[in-house]
Amino acid sequence: MTALHTTRRLRPVALLLSALLPCLAFAQAVEPVDLDVVAQIRHEAFNRSQVAANLKELTETIGPRLTNSPAYVRSSEWARGKLTGYGLTNVQDEVYDEAFGRGWEFRASRVELLTPRELPIHALPKAWTPGTDGPVEGELVRATFKTVEDIEKQRGKLAGKIVLLDEARAYKPADKPDFRRHTEEDLGELQTFPVPEDRDPEAQNKRLDEYRKRQELVRALNTFFAEEGVLATLSISSWDNGIVRVMGGGGRKAGDPEGVPDLVVAAEHYNQLVRAVDNEQAPRLRVDVQARFTSDADLPATNTFAELRGTSKANETVIIGAHLDSWHTGTGAADNGAGVVVMMEAMRILKAIDARPKRTIRIALWGGEEQGLHGSAGYVAKYLADWPAPTDPEQIALPRAFQRGTGPLQRRAGYDRFSTYFNFDNGTGRIRGIYAQENHAAVPVFRAWLEPFADLGATVVTTRNTGSTDHISFDRVGLPGFQFVQDPADYFSHVHHTHLDTYDHVVPDDLKQAAAIIASFAYHAAMRDERLPRKPFTERDE
Amino acid sequence: MTALHTTRRLRPVALLLSALLPCLAFAQAVEPVDLDVVAQIRHEAFNRSQVAANLKELTETIGPRLTNSPAYVRSSEWARGKLTGYGLTNVQDEVYDEAFGRGWEFRASRVELLTPRELPIHALPKAWTPGTDGPVEGELVRATFKTVEDIEKQRGKLAGKIVLLDEARAYKPADKPDFRRHTEEDLGELQTFPVPEDRDPEAQNKRLDEYRKRQELVRALNTFFAEEGVLATLSISSWDNGIVRVMGGGGRKAGDPEGVPDLVVAAEHYNQLVRAVDNEQAPRLRVDVQARFTSDADLPATNTFAELRGTSKANETVIIGAHLDSWHTGTGAADNGAGVVVMMEAMRILKAIDARPKRTIRIALWGGEEQGLHGSAGYVAKYLADWPAPTDPEQIALPRAFQRGTGPLQRRAGYDRFSTYFNFDNGTGRIRGIYAQENHAAVPVFRAWLEPFADLGATVVTTRNTGSTDHISFDRVGLPGFQFVQDPADYFSHVHHTHLDTYDHVVPDDLKQAAAIIASFAYHAAMRDERLPRKPFTERDE
Repeated sequence: MTALHTTRRLRPVALLLSALLPCLAFAQAVEPVDLDVVAQIRHEAFNRSQVAANLKELTETIGPRLTNSPAYVRSSEWARGKLTGYGLTNVQDEVYDEAFGRGWEFRASRVELLTPRELPIHALPKAWTPGTDGPVEGELVRATFKTVEDIEKQRGKLAGKIVLLDEARAYKPADKPDFRRHTEEDLGELQTFPVPEDRDPEAQNKRLDEYRKRQELVRALNTFFAEEGVLATLSISSWDNGIVRVMGGGGRKAGDPEGVPDLVVAAEHYNQLVRAVDNEQAPRLRVDVQARFTSDADLPATNTFAELRGTSKANETVIIGAHLDSWHTGTGAADNGAGVVVMMEAMRILKAIDARPKRTIRIALWGGEEQGLHGSAGYVAKYLADWPAPTDPEQIALPRAFQRGTGPLQRRAGYDRFSTYFNFDNGTGRIRGIYAQENHAAVPVFRAWLEPFADLGATVVTTRNTGSTDHISFDRVGLPGFQFVQDPADYFSHVHHTHLDTYDHVVPDDLKQAAAIIASFAYHAAMRDERLPRKPFTERDE
Repeated sequence: MTALHTTRRLRPVALLLSALLPCLAFAQAVEPVDLDVVAQIRHEAFNRSQVAANLKELTETIGPRLTNSPAYVRSSEWARGKLTGYGLTNVQDEVYDEAFGRGWEFRASRVELLTPRELPIHALPKAWTPGTDGPVEGELVRATFKTVEDIEKQRGKLAGKIVLLDEARAYKPADKPDFRRHTEEDLGELQTFPVPEDRDPEAQNKRLDEYRKRQELVRALNTFFAEEGVLATLSISSWDNGIVRVMGGGGRKAGDPEGVPDLVVAAEHYNQLVRAVDNEQAPRLRVDVQARFTSDADLPATNTFAELRGTSKANETVIIGAHLDSWHTGTGAADNGAGVVVMMEAMRILKAIDARPKRTIRIALWGGEEQGLHGSAGYVAKYLADWPAPTDPEQIALPRAFQRGTGPLQRRAGYDRFSTYFNFDNGTGRIRGIYAQENHAAVPVFRAWLEPFADLGATVVTTRNTGSTDHISFDRVGLPGFQFVQDPADYFSHVHHTHLDTYDHVVPDDLKQAAAIIASFAYHAAMRDERLPRKPFTERDE
């Protein structure tokens, strides 16, 4: 296999490989790989890397980047400056939603148990919730709200109180190391394909219904808590070990009920508060949250783009992307500062080696990912394909990805000119392969493209699907969109949506590797005679 | 082996064991074990346990128990009440140091980065350091002090500043699970004895000298920071993942320089502060610490005792103990609330089953353990043995355990009447065996006593030594003092001296098992014909 790296063009070696891997070889065209370009990409990626410096600036000079916060605006300005500096063209922000929501930011929160004893509580506010306007003090009580009917039972009882919304939760000892690399066994397992369960429209309707009810409950609670004069509400962090895992609450949209100050508490502290209430110790708490909405009206939300213009097929596109927005308690380093600087680096590398791809390679830095892939979905709807907008108010109330259109998929002009999208959004973990999303025709292509990176640990092409990030916006309209297999690292043990998602939890060498692979994937996709193959597309069940 | 539990007396089974284990069997007397009593102890321990309820009260109603803090005083009062309620006698506090130090407590701390961007910093104050008397704001600077000479280089530069004392530290991914039970392999390894290195008086002198210099530096720095008008000093937590690990600083003793507000910062936040200084971003910080000394003068410090009076050998003693004091940022649940409630429970069990031991069994709840085993050392010096006090001022300045006496060991009246001491202070982890501390004659005794607890995972008698807690105060004067082998759990990954040392990290079932074993060990030690064998004792090198 090492012979590969002394060979200038892959064709003869690929033929040899075909002979060695007969199960893959029959009837497969040989996918060309330009090892000259690969060598240049690797050299640039490993010897003049900007990933660490860029991640430091993005996460520590700018900080976390909640969509439509002042820091988000600064981050897109920063990214445009960098991308322009790399010599890319068409560097611009583009609005994907004229009224995405209000701006919000927070500076600090302090929560203290005052009686029965003094204890500093580690708690951080949910995004888009109001601050306290100075310290407030009140008795701590418990109240559980499973349905809107539960609200009436509490009416008149909670004025001036601080309310614990969750039960206590037993500590769950972690039986795996916090920081993990995939083992060979993991990677083997990943290459098996589990036959999917039958579609169950009933279950799907039930989920949608539950989602709607939950949203209704949240709105009703926010209205109730404010009317009632509740001082603040507290929930338990979903992870143990002092990790505060926080997303959004309150009212993102102008006109939505903002509710009251609403914080997530470290589990070890939250459980103590529940027990103090249950033991009738009349606990009192002081809460001081410095948070503010930075606009009264909904602001337009933007994605950021730049291009390396193609040559012979300039109007066809290969897109690489990651989301620029983050949650607000860490610095959005793994989620998804890592992806942002990897994609920026891939573009920098291609420009630095003076790559001249046939197709245009575009970098997309998405906004609104954390609230439901809004940036990428908006882009896809505008330029590639979308369903006719629903007219049913119940449907309109759902987030875009849940809505059912009123007719068949409408393909835009860009649909046929689009080749493929690559995404990087699973934390710092280095690339170990790629999820082919059941695009079987793409499998041998990806195998060929990965081969020169086997020595960096990237070897696996799995036919499996993976979800939960921006490639889904492409995949759901039948376009090739992919996310890489990454080492788990400490993404789901420590950093995902937590106050620990900070620069120190990112491994710069992982990002260098990822940037090299993605630069090469983008380049080869842009040079290919054909667009990347597409998989069978089933219109959504209407 | 299960036959054991249907046999009323161990003798025949022990003989059988002797036949099965010939390497242990020759010339060993058979150690009697009263399986009737064992069965009663287990039944009481597992069916009427008080460990969880007691630990909840101790850690959450009373909270952390820094020596000489108001909460420490409340905790000894609470323990005396419980022990009296169990029907024990001679329940009392006894002073081990007339002037141990000042009282101190803290309620809250808030640290916020103000520029270049806003960031709440997770930081907690060291014990015995002053509060800020309201929020203070200042520029963040770095200054390293390796020797007292470094102070002069900084004089005049730090007024009104907040000083970072440590370097940044790279994140170290944990490659082991956070919460571990000993494996059979671990337990096997534990039973090998590593031949100790030759004594090196030179190295020992060097260590003492370094210790003295460090203490001098700390005093000089505390004086300097206060004179200079430094607003606060910050250090990095010694563990990653947002865990704030904090011990003491400032001035415990009246007359010691108190220094300035001095906090430990979560590593992920601390590193950001260092980088902000290094990048010349002129970072400013706001610090607000609510902490106070509760006395100007040094207060006397106490241990708490209670007894189950012996019958035929009442003036001989078996002691079981744990330390009641803790650090201040968690609630001292694993360190050493767990030990306190286990020892209280062992006494409760013995009383509940109406045990009538020949020797007196005493429970000792020590103070001042975290500052250097002060409570147990004071007790041992007063009642068992000590070296004549040093006269050299350099020696006097050292903590008791480091001092060299001016003559041979002075044995007190209690020395010969003392049998053994058992300690529990390695977190929640259940007992897997016992460290015999090179007391080879005790090995077969412990093996016999452990045998009826093999089904609970306690099987190992290792000849190894273990240190760092109160059994050392006995061991160092040649008296039998032991600490158990415990499962590591998350003691050294999450809770030891950290803000996460809380109730939820303790496993009540572990403590039930420990209480049963220790009750049985104490009972059998008290019933034995002879005191526990003693190992060869070498006077310390004078």
